[in-house]
Amino acid sequence: MSRPLPSLRSAYRDFLPMQTRWADNDEYGHMNNATYMSIFDTTISMWQMHNGLDIRGAKALRFLVVESGCRYFSETGFPDALHAGIRLGHLGNSSCRFEIGLFCNDQPTASAEGFFAQVLVDDRSNPTPIPARVRETLSRLLIAS
Amino acid sequence: MSRPLPSLRSAYRDFLPMQTRWADNDEYGHMNNATYMSIFDTTISMWQMHNGLDIRGAKALRFLVVESGCRYFSETGFPDALHAGIRLGHLGNSSCRFEIGLFCNDQPTASAEGFFAQVLVDDRSNPTPIPARVRETLSRLLIAS
Amino acid sequence: MSRPLPSLRSAYRDFLPMQTRWADNDEYGHMNNATYMSIFDTTISMWQMHNGLDIRGAKALRFLVVESGCRYFSETGFPDALHAGIRLGHLGNSSCRFEIGLFCNDQPTASAEGFFAQVLVDDRSNPTPIPARVRETLSRLLIAS
Amino acid sequence: MSRPLPSLRSAYRDFLPMQTRWADNDEYGHMNNATYMSIFDTTISMWQMHNGLDIRGAKALRFLVVESGCRYFSETGFPDALHAGIRLGHLGNSSCRFEIGLFCNDQPTASAEGFFAQVLVDDRSNPTPIPARVRETLSRLLIAS
Repeated sequence: MSRPLPSLRSAYRDFLPMQTRWADNDEYGHMNNATYMSIFDTTISMWQMHNGLDIRGAKALRFLVVESGCRYFSETGFPDALHAGIRLGHLGNSSCRFEIGLFCNDQPTASAEGFFAQVLVDDRSNPTPIPARVRETLSRLLIAS
Repeated sequence: MSRPLPSLRSAYRDFLPMQTRWADNDEYGHMNNATYMSIFDTTISMWQMHNGLDIRGAKALRFLVVESGCRYFSETGFPDALHAGIRLGHLGNSSCRFEIGLFCNDQPTASAEGFFAQVLVDDRSNPTPIPARVRETLSRLLIAS
Repeated sequence: MSRPLPSLRSAYRDFLPMQTRWADNDEYGHMNNATYMSIFDTTISMWQMHNGLDIRGAKALRFLVVESGCRYFSETGFPDALHAGIRLGHLGNSSCRFEIGLFCNDQPTASAEGFFAQVLVDDRSNPTPIPARVRETLSRLLIAS
Repeated sequence: MSRPLPSLRSAYRDFLPMQTRWADNDEYGHMNNATYMSIFDTTISMWQMHNGLDIRGAKALRFLVVESGCRYFSETGFPDALHAGIRLGHLGNSSCRFEIGLFCNDQPTASAEGFFAQVLVDDRSNPTPIPARVRETLSRLLIAS
């Protein structure tokens, strides 16, 4: 069984700086596994908001996360400065797959790589097609498959 | 300068069991200082809901926290079983002060004691009088001053 | 593309009660996606400690998480009472795969199901064989493959 | 009973930028009360490390928090950019009191102000005098009393 290798920064389309916190480290002295997920959803939310997608408030787009995952390659944690790479691995009719690579300080390869598979839903939590304007914005992150 | 001593369980009016989590402990191997506050607001919320006070949803009572504090007496953390004592140190016209004592496993004195000073607010976040029914419920926790 | 269906409780080998917290819910009013992971690693840690596996302290067994994942089926969150089912999907020479199902209140099917793939490591973070006694303990959770 | 007014930025000695996260906001759509404390201890830890105080590792200075508190003046939360002001309100023989003001985006007054009272302890968790070099570093943050 071979493990996948961590990606280089060039595998991602955009980057956001992510700060670590004292409480991110658990008893083992490194970032707790759950904290990665919190940094991933912050990365995705920030990117969406910086790019004009309204995900908060009464008329917001509501993306429901249906699956998430993370591969951990090397330890990181407070007080490291993190750089979160973001890309879109899939863009479907009502779903998309955000992929995040977390790069620690000036390391060239990712400390961890994860994904959030999301579905755009309506008021009754039913899948609804991604509007053209949103699709155009998201497609900037899309990688060739 | 003398430090106050930790209270006994008898100083509190009601108790709720509180579970610890792996991620509660920080790098020093004990519960992170911020986690205490999260357990305090869970204790208060649970007590309010168990006692018929609606704090969620569209027509909910909305208590705004204006001040919080905590004294730490002895270390605790995962996997300790916690017992959160709760009482009301003050009940004013629109404000009240919840006080919490956190008791670790079968220890007789509190590991930490804290408070949340809250103000009931209306839709525009202005203080509003605590309704009679709510006041009656809260007064069960009130200690003699 | 078909999505997998959520498991029944009978698909898991052991159960631990898991408490929710006020802060677990995010702005959408449901448990934040990262919080699931924190509940998963608490479930695994508690199970390990309840079953005599020393995962803390100087001479502790140190399991490194190499991959994690979660499928979200239905929303849950504070103040729900959760029941975490646990099982082992794989038990290798130095690695194992813990699988968790989170059941909300008295619901028969899982709200979410996830996994943590772990590798036992030595002082220098190199994989090391799982000792016989530990293997015997872990195998109680093993499901037929 | 009069409430204290929030401080201006000029009341603090040094500043660190603090990032908010999606999960910081609770169901009410604003930063959860406990999260403030996590940002406070991150501010203090970062400042200590940036200023040459070793608070991690085997030979680290270990400051034990004996009391904390926070006054909340106006709501903040994700995705606000925070600026954490830091100062020392007290510097004793073995204790000190860090005070933090959290300023939201470009607001002139603090959204919240809090403190952590800390005691330097030795290996057996007994108070120990703050070494001269450390005292000199800390005194840069000291405000006139």
